[in-house]
Amino acid sequence: MSKKSNLTKIAGVAAIASIALASPAFAQEEAFTLSAPDTAYIFNTLSFLMTGFLVMFMAAGFAMLEAGLVRSKNVAMQCTKNIALYSVAGILYYLIGYNLMYAGVDGGYVGSISIWGVSDSPPTDGAGYASASDWFFQMVFVATAASIVSGTLAERIRLWPFMIFTVFLTGFIYPIQGSWQWGGGWLSEMGFSDFAGSTIVHSTGGWAALMGALVLGARIGKYGPNGEVNALPGSSMPLATLGTFILWLGWFGFNGGSQLALGTYDDANAIATIFINTNIAAASGVVVAMVMTQLIYKKVDITMALNGALAGLVSITAEPLTPTLGWAMVIGGIGAVIVVLTVPLLDKLKIDDVVGAIPVHLFCGIWGTMAVPITNADTSFATQATGVISIGIFVSLVSLVLWLALRFTIGIRASEEEEMMGLDKAEIGVEAYPEFSQA
Amino acid sequence: MSKKSNLTKIAGVAAIASIALASPAFAQEEAFTLSAPDTAYIFNTLSFLMTGFLVMFMAAGFAMLEAGLVRSKNVAMQCTKNIALYSVAGILYYLIGYNLMYAGVDGGYVGSISIWGVSDSPPTDGAGYASASDWFFQMVFVATAASIVSGTLAERIRLWPFMIFTVFLTGFIYPIQGSWQWGGGWLSEMGFSDFAGSTIVHSTGGWAALMGALVLGARIGKYGPNGEVNALPGSSMPLATLGTFILWLGWFGFNGGSQLALGTYDDANAIATIFINTNIAAASGVVVAMVMTQLIYKKVDITMALNGALAGLVSITAEPLTPTLGWAMVIGGIGAVIVVLTVPLLDKLKIDDVVGAIPVHLFCGIWGTMAVPITNADTSFATQATGVISIGIFVSLVSLVLWLALRFTIGIRASEEEEMMGLDKAEIGVEAYPEFSQA
Amino acid sequence: MSKKSNLTKIAGVAAIASIALASPAFAQEEAFTLSAPDTAYIFNTLSFLMTGFLVMFMAAGFAMLEAGLVRSKNVAMQCTKNIALYSVAGILYYLIGYNLMYAGVDGGYVGSISIWGVSDSPPTDGAGYASASDWFFQMVFVATAASIVSGTLAERIRLWPFMIFTVFLTGFIYPIQGSWQWGGGWLSEMGFSDFAGSTIVHSTGGWAALMGALVLGARIGKYGPNGEVNALPGSSMPLATLGTFILWLGWFGFNGGSQLALGTYDDANAIATIFINTNIAAASGVVVAMVMTQLIYKKVDITMALNGALAGLVSITAEPLTPTLGWAMVIGGIGAVIVVLTVPLLDKLKIDDVVGAIPVHLFCGIWGTMAVPITNADTSFATQATGVISIGIFVSLVSLVLWLALRFTIGIRASEEEEMMGLDKAEIGVEAYPEFSQA
Repeated sequence: MSKKSNLTKIAGVAAIASIALASPAFAQEEAFTLSAPDTAYIFNTLSFLMTGFLVMFMAAGFAMLEAGLVRSKNVAMQCTKNIALYSVAGILYYLIGYNLMYAGVDGGYVGSISIWGVSDSPPTDGAGYASASDWFFQMVFVATAASIVSGTLAERIRLWPFMIFTVFLTGFIYPIQGSWQWGGGWLSEMGFSDFAGSTIVHSTGGWAALMGALVLGARIGKYGPNGEVNALPGSSMPLATLGTFILWLGWFGFNGGSQLALGTYDDANAIATIFINTNIAAASGVVVAMVMTQLIYKKVDITMALNGALAGLVSITAEPLTPTLGWAMVIGGIGAVIVVLTVPLLDKLKIDDVVGAIPVHLFCGIWGTMAVPITNADTSFATQATGVISIGIFVSLVSLVLWLALRFTIGIRASEEEEMMGLDKAEIGVEAYPEFSQA
Repeated sequence: MSKKSNLTKIAGVAAIASIALASPAFAQEEAFTLSAPDTAYIFNTLSFLMTGFLVMFMAAGFAMLEAGLVRSKNVAMQCTKNIALYSVAGILYYLIGYNLMYAGVDGGYVGSISIWGVSDSPPTDGAGYASASDWFFQMVFVATAASIVSGTLAERIRLWPFMIFTVFLTGFIYPIQGSWQWGGGWLSEMGFSDFAGSTIVHSTGGWAALMGALVLGARIGKYGPNGEVNALPGSSMPLATLGTFILWLGWFGFNGGSQLALGTYDDANAIATIFINTNIAAASGVVVAMVMTQLIYKKVDITMALNGALAGLVSITAEPLTPTLGWAMVIGGIGAVIVVLTVPLLDKLKIDDVVGAIPVHLFCGIWGTMAVPITNADTSFATQATGVISIGIFVSLVSLVLWLALRFTIGIRASEEEEMMGLDKAEIGVEAYPEFSQA
Repeated sequence: MSKKSNLTKIAGVAAIASIALASPAFAQEEAFTLSAPDTAYIFNTLSFLMTGFLVMFMAAGFAMLEAGLVRSKNVAMQCTKNIALYSVAGILYYLIGYNLMYAGVDGGYVGSISIWGVSDSPPTDGAGYASASDWFFQMVFVATAASIVSGTLAERIRLWPFMIFTVFLTGFIYPIQGSWQWGGGWLSEMGFSDFAGSTIVHSTGGWAALMGALVLGARIGKYGPNGEVNALPGSSMPLATLGTFILWLGWFGFNGGSQLALGTYDDANAIATIFINTNIAAASGVVVAMVMTQLIYKKVDITMALNGALAGLVSITAEPLTPTLGWAMVIGGIGAVIVVLTVPLLDKLKIDDVVGAIPVHLFCGIWGTMAVPITNADTSFATQATGVISIGIFVSLVSLVLWLALRFTIGIRASEEEEMMGLDKAEIGVEAYPEFSQA
């Protein structure tokens, strides 16, 4: 169940092919430099690069989604945090994360502390793809987890404490729990299955966000003294829509690329199936959220429609390959039901999640992971629950300790004055929309 | 002329290859699992997926274009409609559309009523690509047709009637006329040629939009009592520009992917040629629209420059392969001339097309289809006209009946009060830009 | 060192393969139409098309970056210029540029004056890729150079003089200096190295922009009578952020595609390495710019963070292949240092560069080119300096003459009244944000 395991067969093919190439019929021909195994190698590498750049662009999607869903006085801050966290994630994953996640985990609980280098897994080792392309693909996943936290804690967290948390999340928290499964650790040995990361990426980001929200508290004015919940509407629905479309686009890379290979007939079929399941789960989420908000609130809530798409996407991420299109619709649609029902629930608990990231990424991440056994007979509910719970406990506890440590040292929250004025003026020094007067 | 016909030769190659693989020299080697036909299979599948995700992103392009060209009070509605129609299109094409368009048309007028499944065209049938990848590519095309309608009818149509129309358009109208040509139906047998859908996608959307505009009527205040035409300027030129660039990007997938294969030397050359013709047709459209508006109005109209690009793209869509770059420039440039001249014409007829979709998609779609015989000797003006007229009559009539049925049952138009207040407040309940005061 | 030279070995392989295919073992089999060399041909073509569409999308990135960094009264103008220059670049490169850059340069100073045609380098010539795909890739590079100029001169240059300069830049200036290196001219013979164009694309655009800024003068109100520098804040930080993300995405194509091939094991490894170096150079630039502005100004400047990413990208562009990830971080980080330090320097010199394009593209372009010998032993500082200086002198002189000629004939600058009113009202006739009242 290691995220790399299905490439070993390619290495095998390569080995056999080497023998084939040494057979008399071919031995004299330089022309066969580009033999079948090389073709597979190029396809696999191309797949990592192409799906990787789609996932990279999800950073822009999160930036636009969050820029659209926060008030204009905090938009430049949100943009800054998103480009910064993507940058930090890449650097930390190089310095610490990748090897912590993948180097010699071997059924255990963590890899090794060392800087990743191309030479760590030389392209000549028969692994079936350029090791740099694999690093690229894994790296863009880390940033996704960090983006989730950014949205929940918007409008009141200070920049640098957030960046310090991001360093720990992308350098340590994410890679350690990732090693348990994708690094070939104990969860992988046990038979846990999380194809593209409903739990490993999305719930992980969601747990970290939830702990941050608890430690940080709600925005001023969000919850009234008599239990009322005040809407603090986002500044730009078209940017939020754009962000959602970019995320949807990127998800083809996120899920499709997690097949980790394109070099065989079966891989090509698998990726194609993953594309259509991913798409229809999101489509189903949109329709369900629209119908539900129309029925409940008598109007369609665009922010719910957008989050419905994301709910469908997160839900199908744990297993985008084995469901039929019909099942993918059901799994995605249930994700949207969860989001529409739990967004107000969080408000009742006075947990202030600015963009709805906890319902989308944490709750739907859990749902998607638990739904895997419905269509994948090689998994069990018990094992899936083990993964969900163990990763949940680990990420929550470490995140909670970190948030508390930050809170009681350098502090994490903007002052009341700064929050009222907006974080853009307080910490960025440049307003997002300096010319548009506020209504 | 079927959109699938050029793949039969690959199937043939695969068959011959199977024999080759069974020859003594190879029979014992597992290594040749990745034989030449498998390579072609992967290339073809990859092409569908890659060009398909580009076309998928066109949904974001339409959303941004329309969000930029409507007034701010209707922007959230326009965003909602665009993500909703993309979702509905995907679901309907799965439940009804694909098989109606492709299953057993066989020279006739329609396919069969049944739910599409991967198993309908198993990847083992030698077709040369993963059937899921083909479904994905065809599905994203359906949404494009529906997007066109969305733009024309903006700012006064109610959400749910529009969604019901979208169900019929993507589930029935588009697939039925599509079956005539791309499903291998009667138009295909006759020799009609529409490479990537100037008629089948763009004019179809355009006819449906035109009928909707006629039934729905103009926006309040658009046409004065004394024949004056009032500009109702769009809310954001940068979003409209972004949308146009996204559409231009997506069009490489739209036209390039319509080669339907990448697995041979000839396919690779064809797609490359399609890319450059598509690009220069759009470029020519921009320049022509800029020069014309400068000469006519003494100022360059950015909305015309953007529509000029789209005009060039629609015009080259019926035949992006056979023209030289010079001809592609001419074909795209004439498209822009058509748009610059017919946008005011529609206003004289009091047909209120908010984003200019009828000139761009319907008129240029017709022009592009009729221009095919200029560079493609296998086609004739008479046959092209037959396709344009027959599809035009079918789509217009059915659309008209549908719009009228909706109008006289549930109603399609927002109340005067709702229209003045803006559809965002009336039906979405969330404003697009709640903080920016209106000038 | 020609941008095409590394493909000759593929042609060689193809030749050998032809012999192989003629050998008795294969001669009778039609199935081997898709032999190994064809596979490489398709991979190479696919690489040009895929990386090319990423670079094409950079036009949208520049448009959004500039739309976000200018004041709202000039946003529609900036959008118009960007879609127009992309269009003009494509047409001019077809009519003049490509052959001027590539046709028969042969160690000299310029190619030939003739219109490019697919038949100029027929796909049957064994070059290893579809010639149209190569043209597409080279064409999107030209537009990038022109985009740089657009940003610097924003908010006061008139539309049509800018377009005329663009015609000369994309039709003559860029191709002539490009022929010296990528066309196989004298710089290439000398051993100059500029992998993806730190000098040939970015500095070229930067020099042209600098000359334009000198001739055009600063915006009204930018520099006060007593030496004070007034901030004229951009209208939308989220659009500037989006533009930066799009540029970052496009840069994977810009640098990765400049490997010019994907058809071998080595090419796949090279592109993968280029991707990760490109990414981490940008990431490093963001972090360095954030930390520096925090230290210097006590607040993080988002526009510097964005320009830090671009600084890293430009800096790594001259050699994205040979550095380790560590060196790529250093090279990109130094780029950001340069930008943070030279933006205020330009203001001291009263050179008004609206978006910071001169520090980013010119200064970092020079830095990146001079940094090549640090990691690439086949180059020397002397030769690199020769390239930087010779191209700098050529582009500066010709640009200066052109700007002066335009200034003293048709004029290049908007009137004071037009500049105060905004170029959108003056020349475009459509406002970017007609409904948002100005603060």
